[in-house]
Amino acid sequence: MKTRSPESLADLEQTKLLLCELLGNFYRLGWCTGTGGGISVKVPGGYLMAPSGVAKEYVRPQELFELDEEFKVTNSSRLDGLRLSECAPLFASIYRKCGAGSVIHTHSVAIVLATRHETKSETLCFERLEMIKGIRGASYLDRHQVPIIPNTPRECDLEASLTRALDRLAANAHAVFVRDHGAYIWGRDVMEAKRHAEVYEWLCQFKNAAAGLRS
Amino acid sequence: MKTRSPESLADLEQTKLLLCELLGNFYRLGWCTGTGGGISVKVPGGYLMAPSGVAKEYVRPQELFELDEEFKVTNSSRLDGLRLSECAPLFASIYRKCGAGSVIHTHSVAIVLATRHETKSETLCFERLEMIKGIRGASYLDRHQVPIIPNTPRECDLEASLTRALDRLAANAHAVFVRDHGAYIWGRDVMEAKRHAEVYEWLCQFKNAAAGLRS
Amino acid sequence: MKTRSPESLADLEQTKLLLCELLGNFYRLGWCTGTGGGISVKVPGGYLMAPSGVAKEYVRPQELFELDEEFKVTNSSRLDGLRLSECAPLFASIYRKCGAGSVIHTHSVAIVLATRHETKSETLCFERLEMIKGIRGASYLDRHQVPIIPNTPRECDLEASLTRALDRLAANAHAVFVRDHGAYIWGRDVMEAKRHAEVYEWLCQFKNAAAGLRS
Amino acid sequence: MKTRSPESLADLEQTKLLLCELLGNFYRLGWCTGTGGGISVKVPGGYLMAPSGVAKEYVRPQELFELDEEFKVTNSSRLDGLRLSECAPLFASIYRKCGAGSVIHTHSVAIVLATRHETKSETLCFERLEMIKGIRGASYLDRHQVPIIPNTPRECDLEASLTRALDRLAANAHAVFVRDHGAYIWGRDVMEAKRHAEVYEWLCQFKNAAAGLRS
Repeated sequence: MKTRSPESLADLEQTKLLLCELLGNFYRLGWCTGTGGGISVKVPGGYLMAPSGVAKEYVRPQELFELDEEFKVTNSSRLDGLRLSECAPLFASIYRKCGAGSVIHTHSVAIVLATRHETKSETLCFERLEMIKGIRGASYLDRHQVPIIPNTPRECDLEASLTRALDRLAANAHAVFVRDHGAYIWGRDVMEAKRHAEVYEWLCQFKNAAAGLRS
Repeated sequence: MKTRSPESLADLEQTKLLLCELLGNFYRLGWCTGTGGGISVKVPGGYLMAPSGVAKEYVRPQELFELDEEFKVTNSSRLDGLRLSECAPLFASIYRKCGAGSVIHTHSVAIVLATRHETKSETLCFERLEMIKGIRGASYLDRHQVPIIPNTPRECDLEASLTRALDRLAANAHAVFVRDHGAYIWGRDVMEAKRHAEVYEWLCQFKNAAAGLRS
Repeated sequence: MKTRSPESLADLEQTKLLLCELLGNFYRLGWCTGTGGGISVKVPGGYLMAPSGVAKEYVRPQELFELDEEFKVTNSSRLDGLRLSECAPLFASIYRKCGAGSVIHTHSVAIVLATRHETKSETLCFERLEMIKGIRGASYLDRHQVPIIPNTPRECDLEASLTRALDRLAANAHAVFVRDHGAYIWGRDVMEAKRHAEVYEWLCQFKNAAAGLRS
Repeated sequence: MKTRSPESLADLEQTKLLLCELLGNFYRLGWCTGTGGGISVKVPGGYLMAPSGVAKEYVRPQELFELDEEFKVTNSSRLDGLRLSECAPLFASIYRKCGAGSVIHTHSVAIVLATRHETKSETLCFERLEMIKGIRGASYLDRHQVPIIPNTPRECDLEASLTRALDRLAANAHAVFVRDHGAYIWGRDVMEAKRHAEVYEWLCQFKNAAAGLRS
C-alpha cells in the first residue's frame, strides 16, 4: 500500500472495522471456528487480509495485514507474531482472474458436507431454488454450477487446481469449493462477497437437508 | 404518506426502529440471509417497507421506503441507490385481500424444505400440534392448511397465483408458501405477523424433523 | 402478595429482572417463540408469572403478574391488556404437589419431537447419559422416566391428567411432557428449574439425533 | 497459589475475565448447558478452575477456584457455597501427563453423539478433513485418532481409564472422549485449548451429519 491522504486513511479504518465485525459474525455462523477461514478485500493501492491461525472473532483492526498490489505485506513490522495465511496466493489468483473486490474463505460444515454428496463429481449443481438469484447474474431457471477441487495437504498446493477451476468457471459462479475443506467465495466488494457466502451457505444447508427427505 | 403531526411522526420513528430491530432478529434466525426476505407494515396514510437487495441486518430507519395508500413510494428522493422489492405488489395484494396490518417475507431453509415434502400438493397441512394455536383463530383440533404456489423466475410474476391462493385461503391461514422460495406471512399488526412467522417456522422445523423419525 | 418491606421489594425487582433476562434467553433457544412457553417463580407471599400471548423476549419486569398464595392476581389493575396464561392452574398444581420453587413451560421443537418417538407410551425414558445427573437426585445408572400426557384443545383441560401424572411421578423426575405440545419443568428455585429445562432439552436433542444414527 | 506481584495480579484478573467470557461463549455453543462442562488454566504458581454445578454463563471472575501446584484450593474461604468439580483430579492428570496449559471439559451433544457411532470401539477416527489441521501437529493426511473411554457413575472414577488412555495417546491427539458423557480437550494455553475444542466439535458435527448422507 502506498502513502495515503487522511481521508483515505479514515476510509481504510472503516473498512478494517467492518472486516473485524464480519469475522465475528462468521465465527458465530460457524464459518471460521478453530481459527479457520478468512476474509480479504481490495482497497486503493492494495489489499487487506485477516491473519492466519488466530481466533477470528478476536481479530482487531490493527491486526489485519496490509498488502500491496503484488500481494507483498507492507505492515509486517507492526504485526509481531502474526502470520499471513498460506492461502494468500489463492486469494491473489481470484482477484486477478475474476475481477473480485473481496474474497471470503469459509470452513462451514454445511459446505464441506455438500462436497461429499457425489464424491467423484467435479461440480456441485444447484437448481430450482429462488435463493440462487442471490448470486450476481444468476437466475432462478439456471442450473448453477460450482466447481469442486480436491484438497491438498498444504493450502498453497491448491493453486494449480484452483487456477484450472477458475478457467473453466461456469457463467455466474462466484465460488470454488474444496472437497473436505471449505470454499473460496468472492464478490465485487465485501458486502457482495458476504451476500454470496450467505447464499452458498443456504444452498448447501438446503441440499444437505433435502437429501435426508424421504422421496 | 400524507403530512403528519409531530406525534404521529414520533410513532413513525418508533415503528421504523422496531422494523430494523426485527430485521436483525430475522437475519440471526436465518430468514433473510443473502439479502433475501423483507418486512412491511401499515401505518396511518400508507405503508413502510424494507429495501430490496441489501444486507437486512444493517438496514437503518431512514432507509425504509414510505409508500402511500396506492403503494407509490413517497420518499424516494431520500433513498438514493436503494430499490423497492419486486414483491411490493404481492404485499399490496395481501393488504387488500386479507385485511393485514403487516406482512413478512421469509426465505427460511425450514419453510422451503417443507414445500418439498409432497411436490405435487397445492397445500401444506399441519395438525395435532399445540403450536398451531399461535395462529389467530386456529385451534389444536384444526387441520391447518396453508396454500403452496409454484415459484416463478421473477417475483412480480407470482401475483396471479398468489391472488388465486388468497381467494381459496382456508379458514385461519395467515400465510402463502412459495415452493423452492419461501413464504409470505401476515398479521393484524407487526407483532402478530412476527408471531405468525415464528409459528410457521416452528411448524415447518417440526414437520421436517418428524419426517426423519423412524416410524 | 402482601405488603412488603423495602428490602424484599428490592429482592422482588431483582427476581423480576432475572425472569425477563431468562425469557430472552429462552426465546433465543427456541423455547418460547410464537409467544408460547412461560416461567413462574415462588416469592415470599405468593408467585410471579409471565403474561400469556405476548412476545416473551420483550416482557418487562412491570409486566409480570403477581399472584397471592391462592394464585389470585394482585396487580391486575397495573397490567392493562395483559392476560394470565391458561396454564396458571397447572403451575399451581406443580407448586402444590412437588414442592417446586419455580416452573418453566417450554415449547421446544426437540422436546415435542421426543414425545413422538413412541406414540403410545406414557413415559419417555432416558438412560446411559451423564447429562441425566443434571437432574437433582438422579444418577448416571438411572433409567430416568418422565411421564407423557396427551394434549387437550384447551390448556386448562390438561389439569386432570397432569395431576395424575404427578401422582405417579418416578423418583427424581422434575418434568411432565405433553405430547404434541411441550413440557412443564420445575426445580427448587428458578436457577434449578432453568438447569433442569436445559438438561431435558439436551436429553431430547440427543435422543432425537441418536434415533437418526444407523445402527 | 503463592503471593503475587501487582503485575501478575493484573494478569491474573485478565485471565479470569477471559475464562468467564469463554464460559459464556461455551454456554451459547451448547457445551455447558445444565451447569455441565468446565474450564481450567495453568497460571504462575498454580491453576484456575471454574466451579461445579452452577450456571456457567453467569460465573464471575471472583468465583473461579485458585489452586496451587498440587491442585489444592487456596481461595476457598472466599468462595462460600461453591464446589470444586469432581473432575479436578482428571484435569490434574492431563496437566501432569500432557504438558497442557489449559483443559476444557465439554458436554456437547455432537461429541457425545459421535461416541455412539461404534459403540465397541475404543477410538474415534477422523480423516480426510482439512479441519484436522486445527489440532497442533496434525496434518490433513493423518488418520487422527482420539481415545474413547467408558463413562462411570462418578466422575472421579474416570481417573484410572483416563490415565490409561493418556498412556496410549496417539500422536497429536489433544482429547479424550468419554462415551455417553463428553470430552476433555486441552492445549498449550487457553486459546489453543479453545481452538482444539472448536476443531473437535466441528469434526464430530461433520461425522454425525455425514453418517446421515445416503451413499
